[in-house]
Amino acid sequence: MDEKPEILDTRLVAKSRLFGIEELHLRFRNGEERTYERLRTPPIAAVMMVPLLDNDTVLLIREYGAGTESYELTLPKGAFEHGEDWREAANRELKEEAGHGAHKLTLMKDMTLSPGYMGHRIKVVLAEDLYEETLPGDEPEPLEVVPWKLSELDQLIERDDVTEARVIAALLMTKRLLEQR
Amino acid sequence: MDEKPEILDTRLVAKSRLFGIEELHLRFRNGEERTYERLRTPPIAAVMMVPLLDNDTVLLIREYGAGTESYELTLPKGAFEHGEDWREAANRELKEEAGHGAHKLTLMKDMTLSPGYMGHRIKVVLAEDLYEETLPGDEPEPLEVVPWKLSELDQLIERDDVTEARVIAALLMTKRLLEQR
Repeated sequence: MDEKPEILDTRLVAKSRLFGIEELHLRFRNGEERTYERLRTPPIAAVMMVPLLDNDTVLLIREYGAGTESYELTLPKGAFEHGEDWREAANRELKEEAGHGAHKLTLMKDMTLSPGYMGHRIKVVLAEDLYEETLPGDEPEPLEVVPWKLSELDQLIERDDVTEARVIAALLMTKRLLEQR
Repeated sequence: MDEKPEILDTRLVAKSRLFGIEELHLRFRNGEERTYERLRTPPIAAVMMVPLLDNDTVLLIREYGAGTESYELTLPKGAFEHGEDWREAANRELKEEAGHGAHKLTLMKDMTLSPGYMGHRIKVVLAEDLYEETLPGDEPEPLEVVPWKLSELDQLIERDDVTEARVIAALLMTKRLLEQR
């Protein structure tokens, strides 16, 4: 399965300030051809942090999602800024969104959203040895920080305001990792 | 946090065959106003299945993702077709992509991809009591079905061709659910 379909043509078919939509003409190894659409992959990488306040407490944030038109319990995240590496981006976003920095950052997984039509990737980072520090962010309203016990993770995942696949995956990975330490 | 931002205006700013991009003008409760972009939410819901062959074996599929330009180990999924409910859609996609139907379907979670700029939702379904049955799908090439032991889930998640947050979340939720039975 190493030989990928041949990309015969790629062209931008729609564009806004933030997004681009590409049409992709592919030839699979069996000769089948398909035309797919996908979002243009953003040139900037992103990070999402699981801030661990202690061995059983994560810091969630409550944030409005314009896509779902609802408040979600989620994890701090954001795109890299000019020249940052993932550690710098992680610590800046943590300070902006969760009021903490972290002395210890561990890369857990590079995740995608929907490989079929998005190339978007996010680095999921476990943040430990936290210290209080706040940086001003660009949020329209202050984010509420919500500590949550990992021993009550199942109840969290059942909530209607916890839906984001990346968040559920990151928290379950964290719980597993802590159980195995 | 029940009072949501007021949506002052929504307009379509770009459009392709499959996707639409909307600009959204919001006023938050503190008076702050923002203009965001988001993908238009598809009118059709989707399902993703965790097919459980036995208590320690899930059926994965290997599929090309045009967004990431790579083959991924993933789970069968797809959009509802005309008038289907989630059970019908789940069984059809299972037969098309994994060569099995399921006598027992359990809705585990309604997941989102990126609430900030996408309203997309997918129903994650545990599929049990499988039986062999194949339906022709619209795939450009036959999908390889890959059985994987849940006792080796950590090794699976470490793989570079397993990146999709929804898949990682669904498999970890399945493992937890089975451990608690």
